[in-house]
Amino acid sequence: MKLAIDAMGGDHAPEQIIFGVNRALKELPELELMIFGDQEKIQPLLDAGSQIRTEVIHSPDFILGTDEPVRAVRRKKQSSLVMMAEAVANKKAAACVSAGNTGALMAAGLFIVGRIDGIERPALAPTFPTVDGKGFVMLDAGANSDAKPEHLLQYAIMGSVYAEKVRGIKKPRVGLLNIGTEEKKGNELTKAAYKLLSEAPGMNFIGNVESRELLNGAADVVVTDGFTGNMVLKTIEGSALSIFSMLKTALTASTKSKLGALLLKDELRGLKNKMDYAEYGGAGLFGLKAPVIKAHGSSDANAFYHAIEQAYKMAQANVPAIIESQIASGKE
Amino acid sequence: MKLAIDAMGGDHAPEQIIFGVNRALKELPELELMIFGDQEKIQPLLDAGSQIRTEVIHSPDFILGTDEPVRAVRRKKQSSLVMMAEAVANKKAAACVSAGNTGALMAAGLFIVGRIDGIERPALAPTFPTVDGKGFVMLDAGANSDAKPEHLLQYAIMGSVYAEKVRGIKKPRVGLLNIGTEEKKGNELTKAAYKLLSEAPGMNFIGNVESRELLNGAADVVVTDGFTGNMVLKTIEGSALSIFSMLKTALTASTKSKLGALLLKDELRGLKNKMDYAEYGGAGLFGLKAPVIKAHGSSDANAFYHAIEQAYKMAQANVPAIIESQIASGKE
Repeated sequence: MKLAIDAMGGDHAPEQIIFGVNRALKELPELELMIFGDQEKIQPLLDAGSQIRTEVIHSPDFILGTDEPVRAVRRKKQSSLVMMAEAVANKKAAACVSAGNTGALMAAGLFIVGRIDGIERPALAPTFPTVDGKGFVMLDAGANSDAKPEHLLQYAIMGSVYAEKVRGIKKPRVGLLNIGTEEKKGNELTKAAYKLLSEAPGMNFIGNVESRELLNGAADVVVTDGFTGNMVLKTIEGSALSIFSMLKTALTASTKSKLGALLLKDELRGLKNKMDYAEYGGAGLFGLKAPVIKAHGSSDANAFYHAIEQAYKMAQANVPAIIESQIASGKE
Repeated sequence: MKLAIDAMGGDHAPEQIIFGVNRALKELPELELMIFGDQEKIQPLLDAGSQIRTEVIHSPDFILGTDEPVRAVRRKKQSSLVMMAEAVANKKAAACVSAGNTGALMAAGLFIVGRIDGIERPALAPTFPTVDGKGFVMLDAGANSDAKPEHLLQYAIMGSVYAEKVRGIKKPRVGLLNIGTEEKKGNELTKAAYKLLSEAPGMNFIGNVESRELLNGAADVVVTDGFTGNMVLKTIEGSALSIFSMLKTALTASTKSKLGALLLKDELRGLKNKMDYAEYGGAGLFGLKAPVIKAHGSSDANAFYHAIEQAYKMAQANVPAIIESQIASGKE
């Protein structure tokens, strides 16, 4: 199984990217990699053992986090991100992973890798941690700001395939993100989507789920439009950051509290790990002809390793082909 | 200044409601109250000193939290909530406060108290805590799921009047809740609203604000449609509850961690108080002919006292009249 990697994307590239690569090659014996980026920087970071199953392809250019996505993908043909996507489009690699510019990766996915036949809108699908440690996948988290009810139905199909084939959840529970659990709640979009989802054959639709229940594991797959999904994603991140920052201030306020913090060190670290997105991999861009994974921009080696593992599992389970056949059978 | 109170709404009615009333009468010397509810239960809870400036009006019926809002308001004419709203509509009271059924209070506000001329949609406007303790008002938090750009402009005007006249913020910063700070970000609604807000005369519009910056005090007034606002409200609440619940588990995991928690007691309590909504009052229902305040359903005496204080200040500052004149002048 050969995957393509963008070594130049993210805040800690290429070091942490390659450290993640080294670990992935150790833990996944059948993995082979095409690594795109600055060859001179990448080569010395690769473990001796990693060299055999990797091919480093030099890319003279790279896309910045501040670049305008669509323009960057069109103009920077020699960038690591674009060359990586080309390798997937040309079937030299089965999937790809980047921690770079999210918009550019979405544009490269759409224009270079291409949409699955029948999929109207690809969706960004991160996996969130839950209190019980099981996590859930939410889509769309921001690929398309505006959505129609039919798009939400396709998101539900794609998310269900992923939850079942990659996350190993039998009959994954699909919830519609809404501001109340009753059927008639919400805006025009959710009311129409509710109807479509409850009529979809073979889907384990459990109805509306509220955002305050998400971290308690209200559903395995949560569907919503990209505007709302992105809003909720950022609200959870922002609330957690604000609370942890206030907690840190409280823990260092006095000698007494510092001593208390010391006694709680292990438990607080456990708490932080529980809320750690990295263990769940990156955000999948679902609906493309091959798996495209966006690792978090601040990915360290651990997070990037999990993103590679996720791409590997998705390619191995042939998720895009299953999605394509389910979408096709729904249209019959 | 005479206000009307629904003594029967909320999880801890009527005890905590009347304890809040007793405190309000002590701290606000010019306050007089009309209290609607079960006379036999209310009378013994009132302080001796409270009796002089209160009139308890017996209501034989009350609206449950589970009642369908519009139907309850139409049918339960003898309920404490409806009778309270009637007192405001008949100008016997200048404003009203209830911790009961939110939908029913909104329906009573709309059908009995009535909209300000020129206001198309009233909005629910809670005040959120921020890390710096200043807080911000967000509207609409769920009165109307679907909104047009012009509604968001009216929300901004109403929020600005409230922030300035009641919260004492000069030239309050108005932010449009969005999934990015750039002007072109967002969905069709936010793009159109951005244009309207930036052209509004006299408004201190600071552009888009992201949900992850809200608790850091990104703006004094945050405007959004009711679906998104309600979603963000519940996401913040849910994230905070989940994190605090995990923290509690961590703090009681072992004897060692319990000792640590003991040393941190004061700081953790300070942290919890900082995140306490109660200090900011209830959620105002803006755009009605008189101030209508929804106190949190779980209100204790302290929270209900702050909600009364908020209604008092809004009535004193004549917020509805100022909103009416600003809306009228914007239409000239």
